Amino acid sequence: MMATLRQSPIAATIAFDEDGVRHGFLRLPYSRDDSAWGSVMIPITVAKNGEGPTALLTGGNHGDEYEGPIALFDLARSLKTEDVSGRVIIIPAMNYPAFRAGTRTSPIDKGNLNRAFPGSPDGTVTQKIADYFQRTLLPMADIVLDFHSGGRTLDFVPFAAAHILSDKNQEAASFAAVAAFGAPFSMRMLEIDAIGMYDTAAEEMGKVFMTTELGGGGTATALTAGIAKRGVANVLRHAGILHGTVEAAETRWLNMPSGECFTFAEDEGLIEPLVDLGQPLRRGDVLARVHPVSHTGAEPIVFQTKLDGILAARHFPGLVKAGDCIAVVGVTE
Amino acid sequence: MMATLRQSPIAATIAFDEDGVRHGFLRLPYSRDDSAWGSVMIPITVAKNGEGPTALLTGGNHGDEYEGPIALFDLARSLKTEDVSGRVIIIPAMNYPAFRAGTRTSPIDKGNLNRAFPGSPDGTVTQKIADYFQRTLLPMADIVLDFHSGGRTLDFVPFAAAHILSDKNQEAASFAAVAAFGAPFSMRMLEIDAIGMYDTAAEEMGKVFMTTELGGGGTATALTAGIAKRGVANVLRHAGILHGTVEAAETRWLNMPSGECFTFAEDEGLIEPLVDLGQPLRRGDVLARVHPVSHTGAEPIVFQTKLDGILAARHFPGLVKAGDCIAVVGVTE
Amino acid sequence: MMATLRQSPIAATIAFDEDGVRHGFLRLPYSRDDSAWGSVMIPITVAKNGEGPTALLTGGNHGDEYEGPIALFDLARSLKTEDVSGRVIIIPAMNYPAFRAGTRTSPIDKGNLNRAFPGSPDGTVTQKIADYFQRTLLPMADIVLDFHSGGRTLDFVPFAAAHILSDKNQEAASFAAVAAFGAPFSMRMLEIDAIGMYDTAAEEMGKVFMTTELGGGGTATALTAGIAKRGVANVLRHAGILHGTVEAAETRWLNMPSGECFTFAEDEGLIEPLVDLGQPLRRGDVLARVHPVSHTGAEPIVFQTKLDGILAARHFPGLVKAGDCIAVVGVTE
Amino acid sequence: MMATLRQSPIAATIAFDEDGVRHGFLRLPYSRDDSAWGSVMIPITVAKNGEGPTALLTGGNHGDEYEGPIALFDLARSLKTEDVSGRVIIIPAMNYPAFRAGTRTSPIDKGNLNRAFPGSPDGTVTQKIADYFQRTLLPMADIVLDFHSGGRTLDFVPFAAAHILSDKNQEAASFAAVAAFGAPFSMRMLEIDAIGMYDTAAEEMGKVFMTTELGGGGTATALTAGIAKRGVANVLRHAGILHGTVEAAETRWLNMPSGECFTFAEDEGLIEPLVDLGQPLRRGDVLARVHPVSHTGAEPIVFQTKLDGILAARHFPGLVKAGDCIAVVGVTE
Amino acid sequence: MMATLRQSPIAATIAFDEDGVRHGFLRLPYSRDDSAWGSVMIPITVAKNGEGPTALLTGGNHGDEYEGPIALFDLARSLKTEDVSGRVIIIPAMNYPAFRAGTRTSPIDKGNLNRAFPGSPDGTVTQKIADYFQRTLLPMADIVLDFHSGGRTLDFVPFAAAHILSDKNQEAASFAAVAAFGAPFSMRMLEIDAIGMYDTAAEEMGKVFMTTELGGGGTATALTAGIAKRGVANVLRHAGILHGTVEAAETRWLNMPSGECFTFAEDEGLIEPLVDLGQPLRRGDVLARVHPVSHTGAEPIVFQTKLDGILAARHFPGLVKAGDCIAVVGVTE
Amino acid sequence: MMATLRQSPIAATIAFDEDGVRHGFLRLPYSRDDSAWGSVMIPITVAKNGEGPTALLTGGNHGDEYEGPIALFDLARSLKTEDVSGRVIIIPAMNYPAFRAGTRTSPIDKGNLNRAFPGSPDGTVTQKIADYFQRTLLPMADIVLDFHSGGRTLDFVPFAAAHILSDKNQEAASFAAVAAFGAPFSMRMLEIDAIGMYDTAAEEMGKVFMTTELGGGGTATALTAGIAKRGVANVLRHAGILHGTVEAAETRWLNMPSGECFTFAEDEGLIEPLVDLGQPLRRGDVLARVHPVSHTGAEPIVFQTKLDGILAARHFPGLVKAGDCIAVVGVTE
Repeated sequence: MMATLRQSPIAATIAFDEDGVRHGFLRLPYSRDDSAWGSVMIPITVAKNGEGPTALLTGGNHGDEYEGPIALFDLARSLKTEDVSGRVIIIPAMNYPAFRAGTRTSPIDKGNLNRAFPGSPDGTVTQKIADYFQRTLLPMADIVLDFHSGGRTLDFVPFAAAHILSDKNQEAASFAAVAAFGAPFSMRMLEIDAIGMYDTAAEEMGKVFMTTELGGGGTATALTAGIAKRGVANVLRHAGILHGTVEAAETRWLNMPSGECFTFAEDEGLIEPLVDLGQPLRRGDVLARVHPVSHTGAEPIVFQTKLDGILAARHFPGLVKAGDCIAVVGVTE
Repeated sequence: MMATLRQSPIAATIAFDEDGVRHGFLRLPYSRDDSAWGSVMIPITVAKNGEGPTALLTGGNHGDEYEGPIALFDLARSLKTEDVSGRVIIIPAMNYPAFRAGTRTSPIDKGNLNRAFPGSPDGTVTQKIADYFQRTLLPMADIVLDFHSGGRTLDFVPFAAAHILSDKNQEAASFAAVAAFGAPFSMRMLEIDAIGMYDTAAEEMGKVFMTTELGGGGTATALTAGIAKRGVANVLRHAGILHGTVEAAETRWLNMPSGECFTFAEDEGLIEPLVDLGQPLRRGDVLARVHPVSHTGAEPIVFQTKLDGILAARHFPGLVKAGDCIAVVGVTE
Repeated sequence: MMATLRQSPIAATIAFDEDGVRHGFLRLPYSRDDSAWGSVMIPITVAKNGEGPTALLTGGNHGDEYEGPIALFDLARSLKTEDVSGRVIIIPAMNYPAFRAGTRTSPIDKGNLNRAFPGSPDGTVTQKIADYFQRTLLPMADIVLDFHSGGRTLDFVPFAAAHILSDKNQEAASFAAVAAFGAPFSMRMLEIDAIGMYDTAAEEMGKVFMTTELGGGGTATALTAGIAKRGVANVLRHAGILHGTVEAAETRWLNMPSGECFTFAEDEGLIEPLVDLGQPLRRGDVLARVHPVSHTGAEPIVFQTKLDGILAARHFPGLVKAGDCIAVVGVTE
Repeated sequence: MMATLRQSPIAATIAFDEDGVRHGFLRLPYSRDDSAWGSVMIPITVAKNGEGPTALLTGGNHGDEYEGPIALFDLARSLKTEDVSGRVIIIPAMNYPAFRAGTRTSPIDKGNLNRAFPGSPDGTVTQKIADYFQRTLLPMADIVLDFHSGGRTLDFVPFAAAHILSDKNQEAASFAAVAAFGAPFSMRMLEIDAIGMYDTAAEEMGKVFMTTELGGGGTATALTAGIAKRGVANVLRHAGILHGTVEAAETRWLNMPSGECFTFAEDEGLIEPLVDLGQPLRRGDVLARVHPVSHTGAEPIVFQTKLDGILAARHFPGLVKAGDCIAVVGVTE
Repeated sequence: MMATLRQSPIAATIAFDEDGVRHGFLRLPYSRDDSAWGSVMIPITVAKNGEGPTALLTGGNHGDEYEGPIALFDLARSLKTEDVSGRVIIIPAMNYPAFRAGTRTSPIDKGNLNRAFPGSPDGTVTQKIADYFQRTLLPMADIVLDFHSGGRTLDFVPFAAAHILSDKNQEAASFAAVAAFGAPFSMRMLEIDAIGMYDTAAEEMGKVFMTTELGGGGTATALTAGIAKRGVANVLRHAGILHGTVEAAETRWLNMPSGECFTFAEDEGLIEPLVDLGQPLRRGDVLARVHPVSHTGAEPIVFQTKLDGILAARHFPGLVKAGDCIAVVGVTE
Repeated sequence: MMATLRQSPIAATIAFDEDGVRHGFLRLPYSRDDSAWGSVMIPITVAKNGEGPTALLTGGNHGDEYEGPIALFDLARSLKTEDVSGRVIIIPAMNYPAFRAGTRTSPIDKGNLNRAFPGSPDGTVTQKIADYFQRTLLPMADIVLDFHSGGRTLDFVPFAAAHILSDKNQEAASFAAVAAFGAPFSMRMLEIDAIGMYDTAAEEMGKVFMTTELGGGGTATALTAGIAKRGVANVLRHAGILHGTVEAAETRWLNMPSGECFTFAEDEGLIEPLVDLGQPLRRGDVLARVHPVSHTGAEPIVFQTKLDGILAARHFPGLVKAGDCIAVVGVTE
């Protein structure tokens, strides 16, 4: 028999079940050296109008990915009650301490929120956030959109994505949401290692779940922020929550069929990319060279692609460390 | 009367005046807690062949700018004695401690090398490096090329640049080098605040000096690394040091005529760019919005351009702090 | 079936069951980078004389609260065998690493000792301390006095307190101890969230348990240190362990009946208090204003009390962060 | 001959010589790892109306002293053009980086602003701020009020103060301003070590200069914030800049005639104060005891006053380090 | 019933079951702020030739102990397929992040690998390494040799050691391996607190397990590195894996029969050793004095040995902290 | 004309010119975030008896070198007035903040005291200490003994040393003091780079100056501490300050005639020493090998001696960084 979990210490300062648009906080008590009775205040907006499905929209699952927070702070501010049928729950920055620090993980506990599910009500701050989504927010939702980008250390061609699932109805509904989003690329993901992910938590509850990778490097551009803003509106329209029709956009479907898509560094150095994101690749093409930096005159290490496809993701910082992922090749359909 | 300065503590492990290609170090003694008799070892390559002018080529003046180091580690490795007439001195990473840390300034003393000139032989590590360039390397040079990019917090359209100088012959020679480099953009810079710059140190000695801004964000792309590699070869050919002819490339000339080119933030927030680098701008166009992040529902601050031109530079990280430069508009000729 | 816990790694260097006054340590092995075979040495004094009840006296549960340590280092030094009937166990600084650092939580593991119960013999240093109290020291005790104050970030009117308990005999004995202590204020506390507290651990074993909040700000005054010294002597006399009669002192009884007692900040700023500790309040009175600090000229946020009472606690540092508790109103009987 | 100093890099975003109330910034360019083209933005308000004297009002010279910033953010917001004859320049937080960090010195360069005068235009951030006051703001002023309190590590009885000066007219004008301020205590200070102080910089220019110590501990109370707000208004009225008459208040005059006023610790420990601020003292009275904390059972070190007077200042944190000032006795007139 | 553990996330880049000598990595995915898709790359060599027993050889269990890594990097490089009958698995630096940092514990999670067994596949980085040894590497081994030394804070006379075990056949085989190693000293260890140790993990699987302490201080000498190199070759020869005969060496057997072998400091200070490692001791001899350092003129604390024997281990750094182990006396047979 | 320097802010709490043995402090005011009116308290002992020369004895010039502090804390405690003719000034830990931190340089300002002379009365804490020695203590002295050892990163054969000086009388007196000290080795040093050294400051005032290197690694042994204790007594006897005769001891004289004595690393790795301190060397002997640590299977870098002699000093930590000094060969006479 499973033990009954303690109640979440997180309290929302606004109601989830009243019509209207409300801006408030998820207040998470956090006692610490610089505030004995302090809290983490995670901004939240709930927009509700009558009956209808609930969309749960999140950014900042990783704190250094910006297209989601831009689209969601903007949406939270501009959404009006009369635009909505059903309910939209918006948390623009899930791992709020990480978002304020501009880091992938939480500065409080180094927690990677997307590996912290199902979380715990008496664990670390990050685990408490995961637990609140697991037990309070996800159960309210019908459709879940979680924005990601590459963060400070990776860069992606902009794509929306969903997972290949055992429940094919759920899978189809998820890919339909991906298509509605309308990113330049769309990805069918086969998750190898799903432990601890928010994605998995949502999918195991039977929710329609989709995510994105819309760029990276710890920045956003006008182009990628625009994709995010249009995409989230499209998904809400697709779900019948936001009035209006989906704004059509062309997309290319990608796969990452095997571990051969990934290239890892075995030694540190200065990376010289020889291919840019989105460029076509033939097996054997040189992706990048890594120059040793302790001496001049040393030969660089050469990395070649093992597959035909396009360059879908790449290491972002100019220096590479042993074990870093240098490049990911996506296979186009 | 000026006091005689102490000799530099830096020693080169290779000769500057012998024919051939030599790889070695500038050894800078640096006693510290984790190495009582330790040193900073700055890689250097000298390629010399007979008589002829000397080019001094540098990257990593700021440690998080990568096109220069890529082009120069590559050049240092591949240059052969017989390719050269005269001398090429290559230091791919001037502020080597900063380069290894991937930071603009030195992790040892927070020194910004490009504000540390003329330096000092008994100052900080950064000041010692500046002093060695000031008194040992710059005097050897006829033409000086110092690579920059935006680093982790700025991003630029790729350009080569030189300063408007009082000596018009020197200025003309410098702009000729810029033109030979062949970046997509070329900039005529009027330095307002030249105190402490390597540029100024070189120019005051009457050297032909040019620099670049070839991208940013703390990364390099295949595109920008390629511009750097072609550019440095072109400049060496233009100077008659490397055999062969300059590889022609189209460039657009830019100016930054006044302080109105620059836009600064007065409060922190999440930046939503509305224009990307290189896009044309008309006065009054919205460059970016900055969303407050402590609450949802708050109005963003809107930043408009004060000039016609193109977006030449932008703030890179997704979060903005009070006082950050958000955007720079370049005026095209 | 519950697993048998491993034995505590903590060893006391003095005996608990021999007559006399002994000063020693709880030695907690702590292997770390700067001491492979190191230990945390927690000072302890045991004073025993014949038969009689055992009092367990503790300060420094939070490391930045000073009235308890002052009273207990003083008592430990001055107590004589002949003063006692029974036993007094004194640990002036429970979370000793936190106490030496002057911080609420442990610098070793960021552990908040008062949220670490029942602890664990193979957990972090803080969890090991909790486990030793849980399984070794609390079982020895009849009456438990744990000193608290506000620490560096809160300030309180000086009060002693006990919890409202389901066992009314235990509750009555606890409030009798509070009354004997004789602080200027006395508090009946209804614990909402008792998970992990030392209080709860003691109460669940059926001990008479009392605590205090005697000031704060990370300091002590002659006034509050005097209250602590008189109070602990009174409690020992009340328990029949120390000879002599309780020194009578006037007290006012307070309650915190609901969440309306607490006021939290939703944004950061500079706090301007408009009421001082102990002052009477009527519902609607302005407690404090919080001035934005990124600009001059901005309106402050105004915080009003939701209840009649007195100001019982307040935020201490001059700057407030989002989520901080600004003020607590106590309701007088 | 003295070298001509470089121009200050600091620029004010508002005018000093136009009528009206303006809120803006002193923008100090500060290039660093997390912002290549970043700035420190120091809030400033200028209120001007016609001809008349100029008052320069400052807080946050040390970043953890709060009465000044409270009074000045409040004054800056509430002051109206028509209230003023002449000019009021308000910088609520001089060492703004220190103020935002809540620390005495700057987190950027550990600079103690009040020991950084006359500063330097090409020194550290703190030296640049000092230089801007030295060469730009102080010359504009007729009367200068610089707020101090004890900060996180000291606590004072609330007093206003000025220095004993060689120019007796200047001294008399300064003490008249102190009297107008109307703090509970007023102090005649004989500066032993005036090197680097803002006070000295102002006095050497012949300005009427006064300062305060209004409490401490890194907090403010309703009482001390009220003293600051009334005091600054009184000084402006006294100077004829603010309309209305000085609000009379009783004050006691204090002196610190010799080094015997000060008591220093020679070893670390836990401080037990035996006298509170403002209490009368006779020579030989015990001020405090310092308990060793590595063992129980050790004798405390006893500190006695060497003079008759009152306790004017005290060490604030509960732990004392070797060399800390434990107490200052003020001699009443 | 025990839950099935998740598969280890660690993947070896080389095969364990093919003949030949292979150099590769254990790749441990480690997502973090500075590398979203990064990994820890732990170097490994497998040398295999036909049938025969498997030796598992490890160093760097603690990251600041160097004789093991020296002997094993050297062996990994120089071992040839034809030298071997059976298999040698060499991981010169088990806790590779700690080894690169030169610290006892991991800089990532402060994990002490030798207290982390059996580890966990979804725990910290250190726990993942322990789990991989527990479930993947140890089961492959017949004989296990784990090198230790004193690290930066302890120094030992050089000895090899095994534990007194309940399985006397296993114990005898282990002591035979110790004897074959041929260190100047050999130790029979009775483990009091075996929780979490690699030793225990290996022994509980019935493996022949031996370890060493070959010096310390965070350094190695020509003498101790030579002992390690000869010792590992001897053990492999003894096991019949490496061809050739054991190189005989004299050894003295030591015991640590009781807690009286250990001397601990109760206060901090400057340690003056009066006996050096290996010197004979009689009960009552002064081992060391600890001088207080806050004043001159204070008496040192004197530490005497409680047993006859030799000085087998000592505190290394010049300063002692309360709780540090100062000296260990070994009893000779 | 040289500017008059400001008076030192350091005050001694004891008299230098009264007979008797006095223990006190050099009190250096140091205002900082954690103590607004704090000080650094440097322990000092002055022993004086009638007329006679003054010896200035110092340890802890570098904070991680322990033989000097051991000998001098011991001497300060045990010296009696009647033992002395003249005066002994003992500062066991010159750079007291570094000594308490156990680091070469000061944790306050990273100052290397032995490169900070002549110092400055208004510079950093380290510069203030240097200035006090320069202008207050050195002028009092006739003979100066400054203890050094290798610290945490170097290890030396134990030697006493003095410099080759232009004043041959001064040089002879200095070498006579070295001979009297009686270390196992004695060194004639030719200082190449004397800038900022305490040695130079003393020598330029014409003092008899000697120093030592008595071991290293951040520890002391019974052997090296004994050398220091005997040596300082011998020097005081030699100078006629301490009664009794010099205790004779054999010594070997060493030289370091050229830069060929020193061997530096050009890349990082794991050092395997092949020679121990004091062992004889012939030109071409292998001193050490440095193993790359990012892979197994890589060839080590081999370092050979360029001179005949003995190994006089070596790199201490197990890991080497680029630029570290690996070994120093001393040439025996």
